[in-house]
Amino acid sequence: MARILTDPHFDDLELTHIYNRNVARKKADWVPAGVQWTEDFADIINSDADVVVELVGGLDPAGEWVRQALTAGKSVVTANKKLIAYRGVELQKLTQPHPCSLLYGAAVAGGIPVIPGLQQGLAGDRILKLEGILNGTCNFILSKMEQGAEYATVLAEAQDLGYAERDPTEDVDGFDARAKLVILARVGLRADVAPNEINCRTIRHLVAADFVYAQELHCTIRQIARAELRDGALLASVGPMLVKESSPLSWSQGTENMVISTGMFGGQTIFSGHGAGGHPTAVAVVSDILAIAHGGSPVNLAARKVAANGEFRLPHYIRFVVCDRPGIVAEIAGDLAAEQINIRAILQKPDYSSDHTVFVVTVEPCLSSQLGRALAKIQKMDCLLSPPFEMGILTD
Amino acid sequence: MARILTDPHFDDLELTHIYNRNVARKKADWVPAGVQWTEDFADIINSDADVVVELVGGLDPAGEWVRQALTAGKSVVTANKKLIAYRGVELQKLTQPHPCSLLYGAAVAGGIPVIPGLQQGLAGDRILKLEGILNGTCNFILSKMEQGAEYATVLAEAQDLGYAERDPTEDVDGFDARAKLVILARVGLRADVAPNEINCRTIRHLVAADFVYAQELHCTIRQIARAELRDGALLASVGPMLVKESSPLSWSQGTENMVISTGMFGGQTIFSGHGAGGHPTAVAVVSDILAIAHGGSPVNLAARKVAANGEFRLPHYIRFVVCDRPGIVAEIAGDLAAEQINIRAILQKPDYSSDHTVFVVTVEPCLSSQLGRALAKIQKMDCLLSPPFEMGILTD
Repeated sequence: MARILTDPHFDDLELTHIYNRNVARKKADWVPAGVQWTEDFADIINSDADVVVELVGGLDPAGEWVRQALTAGKSVVTANKKLIAYRGVELQKLTQPHPCSLLYGAAVAGGIPVIPGLQQGLAGDRILKLEGILNGTCNFILSKMEQGAEYATVLAEAQDLGYAERDPTEDVDGFDARAKLVILARVGLRADVAPNEINCRTIRHLVAADFVYAQELHCTIRQIARAELRDGALLASVGPMLVKESSPLSWSQGTENMVISTGMFGGQTIFSGHGAGGHPTAVAVVSDILAIAHGGSPVNLAARKVAANGEFRLPHYIRFVVCDRPGIVAEIAGDLAAEQINIRAILQKPDYSSDHTVFVVTVEPCLSSQLGRALAKIQKMDCLLSPPFEMGILTD
Repeated sequence: MARILTDPHFDDLELTHIYNRNVARKKADWVPAGVQWTEDFADIINSDADVVVELVGGLDPAGEWVRQALTAGKSVVTANKKLIAYRGVELQKLTQPHPCSLLYGAAVAGGIPVIPGLQQGLAGDRILKLEGILNGTCNFILSKMEQGAEYATVLAEAQDLGYAERDPTEDVDGFDARAKLVILARVGLRADVAPNEINCRTIRHLVAADFVYAQELHCTIRQIARAELRDGALLASVGPMLVKESSPLSWSQGTENMVISTGMFGGQTIFSGHGAGGHPTAVAVVSDILAIAHGGSPVNLAARKVAANGEFRLPHYIRFVVCDRPGIVAEIAGDLAAEQINIRAILQKPDYSSDHTVFVVTVEPCLSSQLGRALAKIQKMDCLLSPPFEMGILTD
């Protein structure tokens, strides 16, 4: 970040202070001599710097520092998705008495200009739906599993490469993507929703066989974050889904991110690129600083408080691992039919032994709650070696 | 446009005047009664409207109207790529004495927020290269030819559907994409180049056989507009090129547009969506109006005047149509070798009769000028039924 900021390309920006809790450890030679290093945040607040860049992450103490900076009339640029997701609306209000801004382009999809794209470029549309791949760690894991590896192997590789944390919960269980989705929904759909209202499903239970069956269905599997306005409510969810091979979402490989926005007037717009890592994030941060330096203020349309639910009507994929015996499919079909759910396809590869058979049922569009009730019954079957695993199939 | 502007979603914008040379013919019922229709542009200049939207197109008289509006201190929003490509720099200067803006997000790639994306979202990068599919008409024609049709047939279809003009010159010969490329280079590469300095090559000479051979090479064909800064000069060209099936550029179908930006820090960013047509263009125009209404001014980094040339070093595809006789390939190979050009592959489908054989030679990376000299010699061969046709092969 500091490196790009001190690049001669950006000679109208001046880096004045660096705050760090351990200056001795962090101090770097290549930072210009005029830059003041400090372990006291008050030095930043009391300086004449115009913009405070917050790269600490997390809710506290970062939130308090951002509050102090905005209250002091300084603009803030942050990459902190959690802070903006949980407290963005209240922090935004602090900018109102002053000619200062709170910008957070780096909080979602790193270097890809999705926030300016939605906030300015697509402000003239009525955006109805947002779908995205917002977590590079999950995309790395899933696009590797697509090639035949199992989850645990790929997670270990991602950890070795620095793409995944030692505790991968935030990424693989969907909380990171959820915070970003909350921000996108606020900016794009003008819908303000509490993160905890959006259901997250983990990718931990996926197995290599799911990718084999997905391919039979001309699909692959991605962690999809989606939000859609319908009848004044917000349908939203985060979790693994089947996506068609023809969908741009299936094209993103490795740690790439992608957002597809669907507007009433302009149709689909796709943003794609490198979501994470130091450089793309730094680009987004410097872009926001430049926007402030050049007097640009974003088109900040008010967001409405809405309730969220995950009741998309979707076709589903259900994977069963069983010790085979006669009558299993009939019983499952009966339980699905009792909830008015129609089976579309049954797939069973011949590669399994009868004491450990993996097969898949796909069903016609139904609500998650309908399917949940059917699976609660099915779950009790004695032949199951693990609970049935289901995912929605993303449709246009 | 007027329809979106009067949508209740945008209740902070008010449409006040509509200027048209023939009000009687254009006047529409659904436009609010308070809107004043006029055939005299002076009524617009003398009104208290804050923003003038120019949707006339072409250099004159549109340029004069935009000049008058900016001189009067009114902001201007335009979709006029030709005007911005040829006169954007001088018109931009007219905004300086006043707190007014000249925005033209709709001039490139219609509804896709490429201009705000580059101008704001990627301002913090050093963009090195831009590649795009900027003309929906050509993309419609080429993605249809990919399925086996000949150029004339598809052009007629595009004309019937309203995707192509009766005189398709601007689109198929590359002038439309060139104007857009000039604007992108100015905004993204900060390089100001005269449109006439960029070489355009037509797509008219493509035949269905080119797509068959392209497929053998795991490629398809698209009209590519590209610009790249190298050693202070701008390499730029517009014309048909082979693009790898693995490139996102090969994914765009129908009238879609796509821009790929490559930055020193952030790597590749892809923007894709509906480039043309009334609705996407209107979205971009309304977005620009909102940006002005909300006090946003774009990050307008100064562009440097640069010279352009088309001397990319690229592998090439060359198609020959010949009346077959012994020694043709040897002669061609000799002429290429005399210019230090190495052959990579020779492809000849067995489907042709000997008096009308179509075959293809691909060559290792070379400069266009090198290849041009070799082809000038080859062109004189008596066996050729039409001049050899060459295209660059887009590499990473």
